[in-house]
Formats: sequence, C-alpha cells, structure tokens
Amino acid sequence: MPRYTAPLDDMRFAFYDMLGGDTLLAGLPGGEAIGRELIDAVINEAARFNEQVLAPLNQRGDQEGCRFDKDTASVHTPDGFRQAYAQYVEGGWAGLTAPEAYGGQGLPHAIGVLVKEMIDSANLAWGTYPLLSQGAVDALLAHGEDWQRDVFLKPLVEGRWTGTMCLTEPQAGSDLGLLKTRAEPQEDGSYRIAGTKIFITAGEHDLTDNIVHLVLARLPDAPAGSRGISMFIVPKFRVDRAGAMGQRNAVSAGAIEHKMGLKGSATCVMNFDGAEGFLIGKPHKGLTAMFTMMNAARLAVGIQGLGLIERAFQNSLDYCRERLQMRALSGAVAPDRPADPIIVHPDVRRMLLTQRAFAEGGRALVLHTALQADIEERASDESQRQRASEVLGFLIPICKALLTEAAVECTYHALQTYGGHGYIAEHGMEQFARDARITTLYEGTTGIQALDLLGRKVMQLNGAGLRHVLDDIAGFCQRYATDEAMGALVGPLAVHAKTWGEITQELGRRAAKNPDEIGAAATDYLFYSGYIVLAWIWARSVTALPDSSLGESARQAKRDTAHFYFQRILPRTHTHLAAMRSGLDGIPAMS
Amino acid sequence: MPRYTAPLDDMRFAFYDMLGGDTLLAGLPGGEAIGRELIDAVINEAARFNEQVLAPLNQRGDQEGCRFDKDTASVHTPDGFRQAYAQYVEGGWAGLTAPEAYGGQGLPHAIGVLVKEMIDSANLAWGTYPLLSQGAVDALLAHGEDWQRDVFLKPLVEGRWTGTMCLTEPQAGSDLGLLKTRAEPQEDGSYRIAGTKIFITAGEHDLTDNIVHLVLARLPDAPAGSRGISMFIVPKFRVDRAGAMGQRNAVSAGAIEHKMGLKGSATCVMNFDGAEGFLIGKPHKGLTAMFTMMNAARLAVGIQGLGLIERAFQNSLDYCRERLQMRALSGAVAPDRPADPIIVHPDVRRMLLTQRAFAEGGRALVLHTALQADIEERASDESQRQRASEVLGFLIPICKALLTEAAVECTYHALQTYGGHGYIAEHGMEQFARDARITTLYEGTTGIQALDLLGRKVMQLNGAGLRHVLDDIAGFCQRYATDEAMGALVGPLAVHAKTWGEITQELGRRAAKNPDEIGAAATDYLFYSGYIVLAWIWARSVTALPDSSLGESARQAKRDTAHFYFQRILPRTHTHLAAMRSGLDGIPAMS
Repeated sequence: MPRYTAPLDDMRFAFYDMLGGDTLLAGLPGGEAIGRELIDAVINEAARFNEQVLAPLNQRGDQEGCRFDKDTASVHTPDGFRQAYAQYVEGGWAGLTAPEAYGGQGLPHAIGVLVKEMIDSANLAWGTYPLLSQGAVDALLAHGEDWQRDVFLKPLVEGRWTGTMCLTEPQAGSDLGLLKTRAEPQEDGSYRIAGTKIFITAGEHDLTDNIVHLVLARLPDAPAGSRGISMFIVPKFRVDRAGAMGQRNAVSAGAIEHKMGLKGSATCVMNFDGAEGFLIGKPHKGLTAMFTMMNAARLAVGIQGLGLIERAFQNSLDYCRERLQMRALSGAVAPDRPADPIIVHPDVRRMLLTQRAFAEGGRALVLHTALQADIEERASDESQRQRASEVLGFLIPICKALLTEAAVECTYHALQTYGGHGYIAEHGMEQFARDARITTLYEGTTGIQALDLLGRKVMQLNGAGLRHVLDDIAGFCQRYATDEAMGALVGPLAVHAKTWGEITQELGRRAAKNPDEIGAAATDYLFYSGYIVLAWIWARSVTALPDSSLGESARQAKRDTAHFYFQRILPRTHTHLAAMRSGLDGIPAMS
Repeated sequence: MPRYTAPLDDMRFAFYDMLGGDTLLAGLPGGEAIGRELIDAVINEAARFNEQVLAPLNQRGDQEGCRFDKDTASVHTPDGFRQAYAQYVEGGWAGLTAPEAYGGQGLPHAIGVLVKEMIDSANLAWGTYPLLSQGAVDALLAHGEDWQRDVFLKPLVEGRWTGTMCLTEPQAGSDLGLLKTRAEPQEDGSYRIAGTKIFITAGEHDLTDNIVHLVLARLPDAPAGSRGISMFIVPKFRVDRAGAMGQRNAVSAGAIEHKMGLKGSATCVMNFDGAEGFLIGKPHKGLTAMFTMMNAARLAVGIQGLGLIERAFQNSLDYCRERLQMRALSGAVAPDRPADPIIVHPDVRRMLLTQRAFAEGGRALVLHTALQADIEERASDESQRQRASEVLGFLIPICKALLTEAAVECTYHALQTYGGHGYIAEHGMEQFARDARITTLYEGTTGIQALDLLGRKVMQLNGAGLRHVLDDIAGFCQRYATDEAMGALVGPLAVHAKTWGEITQELGRRAAKNPDEIGAAATDYLFYSGYIVLAWIWARSVTALPDSSLGESARQAKRDTAHFYFQRILPRTHTHLAAMRSGLDGIPAMS
C-alpha cells in the first residue's frame, strides 16, 4: 500500500517563508488571531487525520468501489468511509473556512487549501463527498434569501449535510445553454423541478442524513440558451422554512457510473420528478450564481491534481531509492550491493525531479492563488480587493488546467519509475494514474479552462490579471537583477515574461481578424503562461531559502529543483510558442 | 461499445503507394508469388476476422478479466476468447509469416504487420496469447537443435501451442543480470529448472493444449551477471524427442496479477519447481538468444501502440462529428441544429489531428521498419542485408518507444474529446487508455529503449543506422528540393536532419567525458529522433499522393495532416533539443 506523509515542512516553507502568508493574513481585517501557532496547530492535526484515517482507506475504497442498490436507489460508500466522515465532522473540518455566524471557524481560504491538499493526497475519492458543500455554502452566502441561509447553511457548515452541483445533462456538458431541466413555479413560492442530471458527484451516498442539490433548470418563461438558466436548491429530504426535515423529496439516483477511477466516489445519474425546489438568486441568472461556486470548485480540482502529484512523488522517490537495477553508466555507486539504486540513473531522476517541480511549485502556486481569494474577500482597500480579484480570476484556470495535466503527467512518471510493478494494483501507483484522469475533465475540461483564460480573462477583460502578474514578475526580476546567484533564473524569467506580453498582443491582433484564432491558440497559451508563472514561483522559492526554516539538504534540493525546472521544464515554452505562432493555419478544417 | 473498422485504404496507400512494399517484396528471392492480389486477399480476410470476431470481445474481456483457479493453478480466459482462438488457428493466421517447412505460409514480416495492427486494434488483450509464439519460433529457428525444431516448431506455427518469454524475476527487471533461476544439468542431457518468474504474459491459459516457455536461467558454473545466463525451453506438458506429449511438467502458475488494464491477458507468476527443460543455443549465451526474440517483440509492442491509436482515433473522430456543444467562435456552422458539432473547435481538431498524425504516420513507419526486416532476411546482396539490419536496429527502439508513448498520449486525447463520457467504462475510451499504459513498460521501458538507441545503436555501433536514415532523408530532400509544393515540408526537414547530426556529435563528445551524459540525454534523443523520422514519413506520404489510389478528400486529409504535423508536432523537437543541450548539468544528483 502506498504511503502518505503530509509534507508539513514544505507547506510551512511555502506559506511562511516564501509567501509570507501568515503575516499577510494577520494584517487583513479580522486576521488578528491568525499566526504560525494557529496554522501549525491546524495542519499538524490535519496531518494526523489524513495520514491515519483517510490514507489507509484509499486503496480499499478503489477496490471495493461504491455499490448502488436499485430497489432503494441508495448508494453504499466503501467500508470505512462513513466512520471517517463522522470523524471529519467531529473534528470540525467541514466548517474550517466557513463563516463563524453559521458555525464555521472563519479561517482564510489559504489555510483551507493546506488541509485540502492533504485530503486529496490521502484519499481523493473520499474527498469528493465534502468537496461540493463548499460551493453550496458560497452560492447560498452570495445569492440565497435569508431563510435559505438560516435553514441550509448551518447543517452544511457543520457537515451534517453535504451539497452537490447538478449542472450536466446528457446533451449539455461544456455547453450548459443546452440544458432542458424544467422548473414550474408553485403557488407557495416553491418550484417543481423535473429533468435528468448526469455525472453528479456525491449525488447520493450514506454519509449524511440529507443532501442539498444546487440545480440548474429553466423557468417556463426562460429565454433559450445560457441566458435562460436559473438556480434552485433541492434537498433530498424536504425542509420547511423553519428548518425541519420532512418527507423524501422527488429526487433520486437512477444509477451510478462505472468509471476508470475515483471508484470510491459515487457519480450519479439524478432524476428529478417534480421535486420541490427553491429559487436561489434572480430568475435566469443561474449561471452567475453557478460561477460563484465554479471558481472555488476549479481551484479545488487544481488542488486535487496537486494532492495526487505529491503522494505519487513520495512513493516514487522511495521506490527509486530502494529498487536496485543496473549500474550507473559512469561506474558503480553502490559496489557492495548487487546493483545501484535506480535513482543514480539521470533519466530516473528526470522523472522524479519533474514530479518534485510540480508538487512543490504547484503547492506554492495554489497557496499564492488562495491568498488572492482571501485578499479579495477581506482587504479593506477596494483597489487591493479589485487587484486580487483580477489576479485570482487569471490564475484559477491556470491552477486548474496546469496542475491537473501535471497530475496526469506526474502519475505517469511515478508509475513509470516502478516499471511493470507500477501497472499492478498492489502498489497503488496505477490507481493514482486512474484517479488523476478525471481531473482534466470535470469542472471544465482543459480546453474550457484555456478558453476561459485566453478568450475571457485576457481578451474580454483586457488582461488586467495578466498585467498584474507581469508587473509582479517584472518587479521580482528588477529586485534580483544584480543578484549574481539568481542570474541563471532571473535572466530567462525576464526574457520569457517579455515574450509572453508580445505573444499576447499578437494573438489579440489575430483574434480581431478571426475569433477562431483564440481556439487555435488557447491550450498552448494556457500551458505557456502556466510554465512561466511556475518559473516565477520557483525563482521566488530560491530567494526565500536563506531566511527559511529548511535544513541545508532541503535547501539544496530546492535549489536543484529550481535549476532543473529552468533547464528541463521551462523549455517546453518553445514548443507552445511555435504552436501559437503557427495559428489557425496549422489546424486545418475537418468535417 | 467502440467500433472498429480496419483502415484498409490507408494500409494500401502506405504499403503500395508510399513504400512500394509489394514491388519490393516481389523483387526479393522467393517473393515471386507476392503481389497486390495476394496481399489484398490477406488483409481483407484479416479485416473480417478482426472486425467481426475479435473486436466485439474486447470490452467484455476487460470487464470479465481472467480468473485464476488456485486449486488447479489454471487460468480461465474471458468468455469467447477460446472460440476466437480456435477460429484464428483454423484460419491459418498463426503461421502467416512462419517458414513453410514447419507448416507456415512464409509471408514477409511486413504483411504480418498489417494483420497484427488489426489484431491489436480489435483486441489487444486477446492478441497477447499468440504474441510470444513468434518469439519462440524465432529463437528456435536461430538457436534450436534439430530435434527441438522438429518437436516444437510445428505446433507453435500451427498455433496448437503458444509460447512465452520467461525473463523477469522480482529482483530482476530491466537488469536481467540479477536473475537467480537455476538450471541443473541431468544425465539425459536435459536440465532441471528451479525459480520464480513474474509478469509472464500468457504464462497459463485455456486456449491451447500446451504452452512452450522460453526461460532464462543460470547453469551451476555460470559467471555472475548477464554473461552467465542461458536459455531453456520448458514445455507445460513434457514432450519427448519424438514429439509425443507426456506428463505435466513441474511448472505452474502461482497467481495472476491484478492490473490497470489488459485484463483479458493473463499475466502470471510462474513457479519452476525442478521442471524439465532443454538448453537452447550455447551455455551462458542466453541473452543473445533472447535478443533474437526481443527485437521482434519490441516491434510488436510498437504495433500494439499503433493499433490502440488507430481504434481510439476512429471513435474519437466519430464522436467529434456527432457531439453537439457550443458554437464555433467565428459563428454558427450548423445554425439549424441546437449547437455545432465539436469538430468545428480548433482545439478539438488539434486533438484529432494529433491522433491521425500518429496513426497514419506510425503505420507507415512500422511498415517501413518491417520491410527492413524482410530485406535483412531475404535479400541476396550481403551489403543490402547489412544496411537493412542496421536501419532495423536503429528504428526498432524508435518504433517501440515513440508509438507506445504516442498511444498513451493519443488515448488521452481520444478520451479527452469525449469529456466526462470518456471516463465512463461504457464508451470504451478509458479501456484504451488503461490498455495503452502497459506498452511503455513491457519489453523494455521507454528509458531502456532510449539507452538502446543512443547508448548502443548510436554510440557503440558508431551510428551506422542513423547514417543510413540521414542519407535517406538527405536523398529525399534533394529530390524534392525544387518542388515548390513540397517546400514547406522539405525545408524544415532538411534543417532538422542537419541539427540531428550535429547534436549526435555533440552528445558523443559529452559522453566521452562522462558516460552519464548518455543517460541524461537518451529519452530526449529518442523523441527528437522519432519526431524527425515521422516528419520524413509524412513528407514522403505527400509525395506519394498524386499516383495513389486515394480519393480527393482522403488526399486532402493527408496533406492537411502532414501540414499539421510540421506546424504542431514537429516543434516538440525544440524542447527536446534544449533539454539535451542542458545535459547532465540540468539533472542534479539526488539521494
């Protein structure tokens, strides 16, 4: 069974030493109580829970999977999931970042991210059950009526109920404008919801007494397309305005999907047969409400990618240190043993360092991103909030797509370092690869993230987020321009940032002539941008080392990984740049 | 269930129009009977068998998997596999390329490759049962004593028995020098084999009456390491020198592995408990005999990659033509329908064209490679045989690693075009991705292929194979230097070929100083080489169009795919070149 040890040292390095997250949060209104002592207490406790409770259930959950009972339309989660969930609720983890007014602990998102990474490393499938409660809480806070908040928020925050996002229908995936589920207004102000939703994560399960579905549907007078979508709250068991739970609502699971991985997570077909629901937000403005949930969900999926990378890397590194095969080409390194550990082979280290670069770099990137969410939410200065919001909007599709694609790549490398043993269920590496494969699909495929980044965040919003990031990089490069030790990193970083600005301008000119140029460049633009952002993150990591709590060997590993990143990963930008420059012409029409 | 239609038109284009394979084979000694009529008859019949018999069993085989009966140490293959195998034998497919003297049809390897691609598309797992018989036949032909050939070859060629390669042990994977299985000589000239082998494909099954294991083991006086390995033939049921089958031999399956994919293929732990075996070839020269089998097996695994790419592509293309989501950014293409087919989106076409580029380019590459094997085997001119042998040795690690890594990538793209539906077992795309994942591991990982290419074929053998390929490319470029229509392809190809020669020289100089430089560059060198070879293949495809049997729309698709390849895939060389140039310095030591 693969091991998991929470990477607390690196979390502290990234959060405290590199990003100054503790100081930053303490300086925001309401942050007085926040400091290293509190954060250390949270992550130490989270490490215990995840290492001891969730991690050991991961492989069993995959092997056992969820069972669907057709007669009762109920889902049995794998053995141990229910007890683990009870411990999770008991420990107060469900409401970690939720408002204190509703029973939460009101901690910043960035601290929640540290805990969430551990959950996703320990047991990605289990982590999908509480995952979407966050989105439901966000949507209710932003758009719910007072009574809806009173009734639904507390049990969600406490974890007694969980939430879902019911968006997809068989004919409506990336294109929600095509959805058909209907909502008929009733005289009492409620609605009857009718339709079928698919791919509903945690749509049905046995962990909690109730499940709160947030459902996109059309009112009778809805305009066609995405401007005619409204959002409704539909509980599994009906709830009155005083919060009392009543009869079963007319919503039930019709089946669960048989999937490549994430088998411990119930992916449900949900049938709404005139279920009682309540409108959230304004009629026909459901997509706005949904995007409130979606931003958080997309960052969350990026963190799933990170969690998988970290755990796969830990096991891959162990294996490469222990597995003896062949001698180093330059001569035996361990002549007293039958062969050298495979970590002596440069090609094996290439695979390990790629994983480390994405694990540690990805961690700092999502923490930096989450800190923007905290600034956006808490800062007293409007312009500071605005800037953070623009940076956040820009970085979210990068976090989501880059780290999930990196998870596919890194779980590939981890498996590959095990050779044939990686393909066998026993060692758990193939599960990570299967689990990772969903992350580039749900909450918007990589292609959808790329369109969001280039089409919306850069082109439609005039690239405010990009400008801030480029300013930050320019400031960083200027600050370390004369630092000899940083020259090998700052030089290439500055060159890349300049080209990034230029290619963005060029794509803007092309898109003005033919909007399809955006589609032709978007995915390459996302990766190109992501690799430059990660280069900045890695350069920043190195500058944070002298004043850090890391020991010398960990510092050397950081410097080495940064060097590797610049030598071996950052050159991927060459290929993406060439692809962008070839434009739509390089992708002929097909029919 | 995913469909499969044998790509006969493209096979004919590649084999006849582009490579002139029919003329070439007919011109070799013994090739008088070979022509398009014969080849068409073979591939038409193969298409029927694969489309109608093997393809429909593929998904069921994955779901059912193999069952191991501990009490009898027997393996039950999935429902239908046994009947399909009987039809395969009945149809004479087992001996297609085997010598007529032993009951085969004596057809060239290149024709066998056309059939093998279909089997691997239709049902990769099923295809692993007859797969290694070929290796056993090759080893017996090259190294077996007369009586061994008389006794074992005929049933193998007829398909009444199957073969295995028993190499790997728990502590000996890439490094066979570590293997421990022992062989004790007996007075009657036989040997007692004792030890445990793992990951034995088709080590036990219920398709045939007997199984012939080729086993690597150590004689009592064997030197340590890889110079002390001998090869033995160990049948499941003992066979006397007259060919009569007797008692069960002391070899049996101890378990089958639970794997990520390829579930219809029995991957066995094989226990040899003093089993009767016979030495093949000379004592301590087992690795030489093994490499006889290994070359064919590596090309075969490259073809497995190709087969998966082709089938995934077919289904992905269908889906992208049918699935309606969103409008083209430049305006509705199908305004009368609820949305446009997703093939209108450039990013979707990018994923489709990548698959097509590897499917059709990969097909021409393996056929070109297999023709070298036929020339090596059949040509009357010694220098022609020598040249073909050198080209073959150079191209085999490229075919193996490039096409299996492309299979991982292309099954990724195919799945991705299905969105969430790709992750669901029902559509079959996730099975292709799981099945593909073994191909970069077995018969030598990608890293091992890369070391074989750069360390052995280029550095140790003075790059004879590379020189021939570079000569062929230079000749091609010269021939089309003034052809205006080919300028966009020939120009970049010539530049790449020049740089390829230069970086090879540079790596040679580095390796002379530190052999670890080979390990640091090998994988990038393999991909770099592979992409240039495929560019040459794609440019050749375009030159073959005017005189081809393809219709105009197929010709346009070829030209478009070649253009896409040069614009969007070939630029990957930039990244690999930068990585090679950074050298060992870019991959710091780890411990």
